Amino acid sequence: MGKTTRNLQVVSPVPADIDIANSVEPLHISEIAQELNLATEHYDLYGKYKAKVLLSALDSIGGGQDGYYVVVGGITPTPLGEGKSTTTVGLCQALGAFLDKKVVTCLRQPSQGPTFGIKGGAAGGGYSQVIPMDEFNLHLTGDIHAITASNNLLAAAIDTRIFHESTQSDKALFNRLCPPDKNGNRRFSDVMLRRLKTLGIDKTNPDELTSEEVTKFSRLDIDPSSITWRRVMDVNDRFLRKITIGQGPEEKGMVRETGFDISVASEVMAVLALTTSLADMRERLGKMVIGNSKAGYPITADDLGVGGALTVLMKDAINPTLMQTLEGTPVLVHAGPFANIAHGNSSIVADKIALKLVGPGGFVVTEAGFGSDIGTEKFMNIKCRYSGLKPQCAIIVATVRALKMHGGGPEVAAGKPLDRAYVSENVTLVEAGCVNLAKHISNTKAYGVNVVVAVNAFSTDTEAELNEVRKASMAAGAFDAVICTHHAHGGKGAVDLGIAVEKACKNVSQPFKFLYPLDIGIKDKIEAIAKSYGASGVDYSEQAEKQIEMYNKQGFSSLPICMAKTQYSFSHDAKEKGAPSGFVLPIRDIRASIGAGFIYPLVGTMSTMPGLPTRPCFYEIDLDTTTGRVVGLS
Amino acid sequence: MGKTTRNLQVVSPVPADIDIANSVEPLHISEIAQELNLATEHYDLYGKYKAKVLLSALDSIGGGQDGYYVVVGGITPTPLGEGKSTTTVGLCQALGAFLDKKVVTCLRQPSQGPTFGIKGGAAGGGYSQVIPMDEFNLHLTGDIHAITASNNLLAAAIDTRIFHESTQSDKALFNRLCPPDKNGNRRFSDVMLRRLKTLGIDKTNPDELTSEEVTKFSRLDIDPSSITWRRVMDVNDRFLRKITIGQGPEEKGMVRETGFDISVASEVMAVLALTTSLADMRERLGKMVIGNSKAGYPITADDLGVGGALTVLMKDAINPTLMQTLEGTPVLVHAGPFANIAHGNSSIVADKIALKLVGPGGFVVTEAGFGSDIGTEKFMNIKCRYSGLKPQCAIIVATVRALKMHGGGPEVAAGKPLDRAYVSENVTLVEAGCVNLAKHISNTKAYGVNVVVAVNAFSTDTEAELNEVRKASMAAGAFDAVICTHHAHGGKGAVDLGIAVEKACKNVSQPFKFLYPLDIGIKDKIEAIAKSYGASGVDYSEQAEKQIEMYNKQGFSSLPICMAKTQYSFSHDAKEKGAPSGFVLPIRDIRASIGAGFIYPLVGTMSTMPGLPTRPCFYEIDLDTTTGRVVGLS
Repeated sequence: MGKTTRNLQVVSPVPADIDIANSVEPLHISEIAQELNLATEHYDLYGKYKAKVLLSALDSIGGGQDGYYVVVGGITPTPLGEGKSTTTVGLCQALGAFLDKKVVTCLRQPSQGPTFGIKGGAAGGGYSQVIPMDEFNLHLTGDIHAITASNNLLAAAIDTRIFHESTQSDKALFNRLCPPDKNGNRRFSDVMLRRLKTLGIDKTNPDELTSEEVTKFSRLDIDPSSITWRRVMDVNDRFLRKITIGQGPEEKGMVRETGFDISVASEVMAVLALTTSLADMRERLGKMVIGNSKAGYPITADDLGVGGALTVLMKDAINPTLMQTLEGTPVLVHAGPFANIAHGNSSIVADKIALKLVGPGGFVVTEAGFGSDIGTEKFMNIKCRYSGLKPQCAIIVATVRALKMHGGGPEVAAGKPLDRAYVSENVTLVEAGCVNLAKHISNTKAYGVNVVVAVNAFSTDTEAELNEVRKASMAAGAFDAVICTHHAHGGKGAVDLGIAVEKACKNVSQPFKFLYPLDIGIKDKIEAIAKSYGASGVDYSEQAEKQIEMYNKQGFSSLPICMAKTQYSFSHDAKEKGAPSGFVLPIRDIRASIGAGFIYPLVGTMSTMPGLPTRPCFYEIDLDTTTGRVVGLS
Repeated sequence: MGKTTRNLQVVSPVPADIDIANSVEPLHISEIAQELNLATEHYDLYGKYKAKVLLSALDSIGGGQDGYYVVVGGITPTPLGEGKSTTTVGLCQALGAFLDKKVVTCLRQPSQGPTFGIKGGAAGGGYSQVIPMDEFNLHLTGDIHAITASNNLLAAAIDTRIFHESTQSDKALFNRLCPPDKNGNRRFSDVMLRRLKTLGIDKTNPDELTSEEVTKFSRLDIDPSSITWRRVMDVNDRFLRKITIGQGPEEKGMVRETGFDISVASEVMAVLALTTSLADMRERLGKMVIGNSKAGYPITADDLGVGGALTVLMKDAINPTLMQTLEGTPVLVHAGPFANIAHGNSSIVADKIALKLVGPGGFVVTEAGFGSDIGTEKFMNIKCRYSGLKPQCAIIVATVRALKMHGGGPEVAAGKPLDRAYVSENVTLVEAGCVNLAKHISNTKAYGVNVVVAVNAFSTDTEAELNEVRKASMAAGAFDAVICTHHAHGGKGAVDLGIAVEKACKNVSQPFKFLYPLDIGIKDKIEAIAKSYGASGVDYSEQAEKQIEMYNKQGFSSLPICMAKTQYSFSHDAKEKGAPSGFVLPIRDIRASIGAGFIYPLVGTMSTMPGLPTRPCFYEIDLDTTTGRVVGLS
């Protein structure tokens, strides 16, 4: 066992999350860093319990070998969630504090919206948590705030540019963009040279541009109806979903309908999660497309002159944040892209650093969003494609509760009491529901990884039910299936899972393979994914067909696909539980995150801005002003 | 000289600010902290060059004596600014690095809006700067982001509450606000007990409320037309000045006109600047009034149940950020309230900590916004009133350029070349303009402090011009008037100023006094301030009269007054230079920041959301991805 790890004194019944979190005094984060052999020049402290690990760490440790790479996905969940984060943390506590392995947990940073809204925090649960829980769930080290700032600077640049173009001649615009200095000389800034390159103008002296080139350069001619870039805010503010802007008298009637998304839905967040270096991030941020010109050309952040400023705003956010679990094992928290319109996985940068830090024989456990149909699928086909990393093992978290739902149990809804079927033995329901688990197993196995099922056991589960899940898992081709009690017992409750995962990592027999290659058509890629869901075909709306044509023309057809689909079913219909098949998947519209690097078909309508209930979580949240401690955070 | 201070190697002509800033390797901030005798448990590192000084520091050093307290104001400025921040920094470099004094500079955190917009950064200039300049001007330690988050959480709570009240009966509302637990028991959360107290309901058991009390408690009945709370963003986004929200189909037609201000204009920022402790901040945030009920009662953040959550979001922001000057002297950066609709001064907390850290014989130099008519006036009558602190010396920064403008020189505008009058000798213009300086001196002297004029000398100023300013200053009652060259020479250029300030602090002969007492009427207070401007009277609009009546009725009449007036004239008319008199000051409207603790009359129209020009600063800003350094920041 490492110097920093320690076992928990567990209490039964399990106390409230916040009480457990507050009962453990976190170690100074420099102790965690030291245990990882992280040199002091490679991290920056942010208070006593958080540190940003600098990208420069990769320069010095980048030559070493990687550890094992484990991804955690889940079966199709109930709206209550099946404990994917909790299992991720519990497994790492087992590996680090009980099995004497080097281990790093890679988690996403949660949005502050749900913390104050309905859902509460996201630091795990019970005796498997990241601490300090309030810092994890609140500002952390400011990455989401940096995303909000850069997303909205770009938004302001768009509307202001349209405004200034509407009132100025081409020549006046050019004069303002490249003003002569005291000696009458003009100069292009670096970002302007990028635009000139895009336009195929091979000149660096502003005075040499023809008047036609002056027009091409100065006038972006953005089509307001084509703008897909929205403003963002890390607050559940439903009244900003659809708004009209520009109604002030100084804006001269240039009103426009638009809206706000929650910050984690910003393409800037998706860029952060998928980037691999500062230089790569600069390119991706500059390439983000905000809409088209009236002639149909894509307009980028660099065309607006703001790609460099966006990078400056994001320069610290690219460094992952080091924290710790309740049992003193290290955690890297980084990025938290929205899991349907984006890919919902934690960052490539954090995983890469972690794999070097643990080294050969060590483990990096990273979480993928939602059910494995979208979470793990996007992990494999988007994240691993960009990172070049290959996992050895994929975990699928299952609960008896969710399997019963898939087997035909009554509806499970947040805020309503659970039906009796979920708290008393019903092996038949479990057995019937295992079709869902089986499909997640076979889909995940197809990537060439070993699949370990982690059954997140509840106190109401019976031995017969749990055995049924194990049996069905093995029948469907799982490498192993393990009953875990990390919520009630911390790492100790996931020791068997840790042993199974180690065995799975050491016994990979298949080569890693993607679900689809990049160089086929957009539709072919969509259809490959749809087929993996169980669909018999795909139905494209007229709008979707139009968009595909446009992306083909604009040269974006070779990007991977990021399906925006409900997590509550393999199909597009959240009510279709189990393993539906033979359905036709409808594609309502298709959008693109060119900077992040994917095309995202919309399967149904996705809300990108949650709301607040009548009694939001914030009613319980307060500060004990004597101790400075947060109370009421759940 | 302290261990951390060091003298600069200055170059002539003065290089660009960013080049000077980058030429000095900052010390690790723990060295600066150590030099201040700040124990390691009293600060949190945020990277290598920033640290948050914890409020707990006051608990251990709070028993000691304060140092001298010096406030820096200015004459009525040109739109180019007269170097108030630069002089503040230069003076401290002189005191610390040349005169061997303990000194702390207290500065405001700048908004990111201007950094990317027109103005550029705000870290001082030339050889008198705070470093690292990019960290100072960008996210710093996240305080402004915390303000944005809490301001907007409150905004979301307002609209969502109106929405939920519109669709639910009183009983349903109550059921949702105080839901029964498993055993059928209901419970009020702490913040609900605050509302009950306001309503005069002395019960703690929800089941004991009469149905009339249930209605009173559950239904805030907010009058949408009375809402003064706006959303904020730290970006120059003019298209958000006036918007319509709630246009999504789920919001069922509940549209409302509102808008965004820049984040520093948020009342939460004003609260941060004026608070004195965590407990005080909790009370102020909860007391913020967002509008009225239809019956005319003020509705607060605590009525909405969100005061505690706002405090949690602000719990780290209350700790000032420690940085350093180019010459290694300590700087506390904290708060940056909008200087017209709020009071525009850095925080009470930072000043209090600094005064204890420097101790007897040491100096705290804090900057007030704008010209002394509003900056210093608000410092004395609002900030000192709430802090209980009393300055010994007030500095008035003057430039020959601005005095020439006041003496009748041609218009000075940003982005346009300066008229010849400003770069060649013209003693007559200077002499005529000194009426402005004289009025700032006599107004400031009236508080019982010694006034030292700091003439921020430019290379084009002549000896005759500078002598004229000195002569006029002494004639107007200044304690001293000193020519300074800290922009060109760093602390060395402000040594004489430092000596004069020390003498001024040691020779206070008058008792400190406010301009007005709190217990007179709102109008009497406004008139006292107007008279200090030179006004012969005040003219109230019908709307202003109505508001005064309402604030009287609501019990807010004993708050201090924060005039929202142009900084470009003593009067309401920016074109009236010099020292106008006999004018009637028009009060267009009156608003209140009840949580922050002041009433603010609007003298004319104030823009609370700047815009971006055709070529914003961001065109030059980029990241050198090889070195990780920011380039192009001005």
